[in-house]
Amino acid sequence: MNTNITRRISKAIKIGGVTVGGGAPVVVQSMTKTDTRNTKATVRQIKQLEDIGCEIIRVAVPDAEAATALVDIKKGIKIPLVADIHFDFRLALAALEAGVDGLRLNPGNIGEPDKVRKVALAAKKRGVPIRIGVNAGSLLKTSDKKLTVADHMVAAALAQVKLLESLDFDLIKVSLKAFDVPTTVAAYQSIADKIPYPLHIGITEAGTPRSGVIRSAVGIGTLLWLGIGDTIRVSLTASPKEEVIAAYEILKSLDPRRRGPVLVSCPTCGRAEADVVKLARDVDRRLLKIDKPIRVAVMGCVVNGPGEAKDADVGIACGKGKGVIFKHGEKVAVVEEKDFLNALMREVQSL
Amino acid sequence: MNTNITRRISKAIKIGGVTVGGGAPVVVQSMTKTDTRNTKATVRQIKQLEDIGCEIIRVAVPDAEAATALVDIKKGIKIPLVADIHFDFRLALAALEAGVDGLRLNPGNIGEPDKVRKVALAAKKRGVPIRIGVNAGSLLKTSDKKLTVADHMVAAALAQVKLLESLDFDLIKVSLKAFDVPTTVAAYQSIADKIPYPLHIGITEAGTPRSGVIRSAVGIGTLLWLGIGDTIRVSLTASPKEEVIAAYEILKSLDPRRRGPVLVSCPTCGRAEADVVKLARDVDRRLLKIDKPIRVAVMGCVVNGPGEAKDADVGIACGKGKGVIFKHGEKVAVVEEKDFLNALMREVQSL
Repeated sequence: MNTNITRRISKAIKIGGVTVGGGAPVVVQSMTKTDTRNTKATVRQIKQLEDIGCEIIRVAVPDAEAATALVDIKKGIKIPLVADIHFDFRLALAALEAGVDGLRLNPGNIGEPDKVRKVALAAKKRGVPIRIGVNAGSLLKTSDKKLTVADHMVAAALAQVKLLESLDFDLIKVSLKAFDVPTTVAAYQSIADKIPYPLHIGITEAGTPRSGVIRSAVGIGTLLWLGIGDTIRVSLTASPKEEVIAAYEILKSLDPRRRGPVLVSCPTCGRAEADVVKLARDVDRRLLKIDKPIRVAVMGCVVNGPGEAKDADVGIACGKGKGVIFKHGEKVAVVEEKDFLNALMREVQSL
Repeated sequence: MNTNITRRISKAIKIGGVTVGGGAPVVVQSMTKTDTRNTKATVRQIKQLEDIGCEIIRVAVPDAEAATALVDIKKGIKIPLVADIHFDFRLALAALEAGVDGLRLNPGNIGEPDKVRKVALAAKKRGVPIRIGVNAGSLLKTSDKKLTVADHMVAAALAQVKLLESLDFDLIKVSLKAFDVPTTVAAYQSIADKIPYPLHIGITEAGTPRSGVIRSAVGIGTLLWLGIGDTIRVSLTASPKEEVIAAYEILKSLDPRRRGPVLVSCPTCGRAEADVVKLARDVDRRLLKIDKPIRVAVMGCVVNGPGEAKDADVGIACGKGKGVIFKHGEKVAVVEEKDFLNALMREVQSL
């Protein structure tokens, strides 16, 4: 049977130098948590995110001072900068003036046609894409009980799409985020068939890392498995670095060719004869510094151990006091327990 | 649009007193990591898991001594006990003798018809279900290049199903676990249409908690969203408690009526005027002790804050120095920043 994911092909747009949609690899985004007016802190945070693979960064623009700060922020960073606009369309105009690479507008609080029109015309002149960023929490609710939240989200997005299209503006990206996963998935599935534009996907206000990465992985993962999603953001109540790391883990779980290694490690059970939990944790930590898309296996016994270890680029099958190290399916060494970690990492480094 | 998940309806079976399949709520399982022969440590670990909602427990049975220990383990615990058998079918017979509530056999290393037949007849006499637990890592590979791993997994399971059915044995549960998520999902989708039996789902050797919960959430979440899965286990290289906690988070992300609260919390951004990260972390920790399936929101600004806070059972929308607390959609208090946590938790306790 075919186990490949067939991706929805969307129209490609460019956010700065980064292609979103059109079959390009799924782009990883995050959002700064600093006060945007504090240029120095914001640039510092963005540079940390660049280092771990963040490909587009969004910043809140709550006032005119924040909009002005965008000029210097843009100068200090390498990845494309997107301004997040709520309530006041004039801040979108100021952000364009400051040279941002993208805008995000929330139809829930900036939906008036005249205002959106002004922003779209200014964005068109500069060739800057606009994300129509619908969010369940800031959506106006109608009293029609037959409609679900997902219906409202899709309707709000489609109204804005129409408005932008009527201005001959097509540098469009759409997002439809809710906290509820089935609502989010249904909304994206619905709009995926109705518009040709790329989709930015995510689960909004997903929570702290403990529960939020799981909720995000279920929602974003299901959508990606369905072939939907051109760019993703994991929203966590935590450092944005955790958002980027989680985003890559989600991507790697569906596409092993993505940035960084994957670690196959057994849960251990009453069969394990070595401290596999500690070994896996140590290996995991060391692998964080490696960018190569390799597969490493740490296995605790003879049930699946040799099989998984052989299938990995580098693997260890641990037994009592001794472990067998495999590289590209070949047994390369038998090592003592105290050398498990270093021997394994030596082989990883040699790849 | 309809955002409900339509579940595959499977034949119900009973593992001890717990119903698996037939539309019953998805059952949470884990596996002990102690040496099964150490009855005391194993019982202690299982009791900890019972406390946090583990509903079925599996233990490795690598030798005769472990099989004998099952008698006392069973006496010391409340939830159904499943024996995990590899290589030696006689250990399955000994486990049945010891009174286990379920067996798991791995067709990759115990597939010989004669041996399986002996086990099935003994299980039938006692009314004990058997899980056919296929695992990609321990599967015999054929040289047919046209077949994918998923094809091999499904074929291995179907062969065993046929064998058990030929003995008029139908207390069957099936699992098809791989590390690769698209392979796992495709295999389960394929078998879901071919057999009426309940499915145990999971991603095998998913890794350490950092990456393993994400991989498990993507795989198990996608399957549950597709309506597939009657019981789940999250396999992590970590304490089994982390497996159970992650399992419930996956379930809650698709079904808010499950055990324990959900926390909606915003990722914070340049708009936040309070330390939402710390507040959310503190609330999250306190909510761990609460079993009620409630929804709590911690929000950092006026964009989605009031909307999400109102939709929750209890919520706070934080502003500069002050926060508004909502309960069932009604504003109930305005509190100072130093009182955010306690005021919110007071309302949670009062529900």
